[in-house]
Amino acid sequence: MHSITLIGLAAAFCTTAAFVPQVLRILRTGNVDGISLSMYSIFTLGVLLWLGYGIVLRDLPMILANLVTLILAAAVLGLTLRTRLRVRNRAVAA
Amino acid sequence: MHSITLIGLAAAFCTTAAFVPQVLRILRTGNVDGISLSMYSIFTLGVLLWLGYGIVLRDLPMILANLVTLILAAAVLGLTLRTRLRVRNRAVAA
Repeated sequence: MHSITLIGLAAAFCTTAAFVPQVLRILRTGNVDGISLSMYSIFTLGVLLWLGYGIVLRDLPMILANLVTLILAAAVLGLTLRTRLRVRNRAVAA
Repeated sequence: MHSITLIGLAAAFCTTAAFVPQVLRILRTGNVDGISLSMYSIFTLGVLLWLGYGIVLRDLPMILANLVTLILAAAVLGLTLRTRLRVRNRAVAA
């Protein structure tokens, strides 16, 4: 296997797997204070576009990497949104 | 311009520009509580690998997109690290 292919695979693995510790941290601490909802909204849209791009090009590695990233980024987006709404509802109820 | 190229450009723009609101939020609030240092360490490494991948392939769009993402992701990583160290030093000093 060419070294350039290895670099590409390592890059795809890192930029995909990187979101796992962020999801775990939110699940463990329930803390989403510093997280930007705008970032994850725009990023998730971008990954969705990369997924579409990969499907049109029938590029399986690109499809698989972006499918996993989409699930993880959407998880961070959903968890952050849910936590923020809960905090706000509690404040309103108090 | 082919629609597929437009999808690729839109995807690259979103997954690059997405980090700007995260950097601005940290600068505005100084709050990095929910942010995972492991995520940004692995993600920044991954973007660095994508940059190397683009250089080897002499792919200018890939080089430019990943260069900007690298700067932004490294900024979030650096700001988060700096803020965490400050908080810890204050706790030790107290």
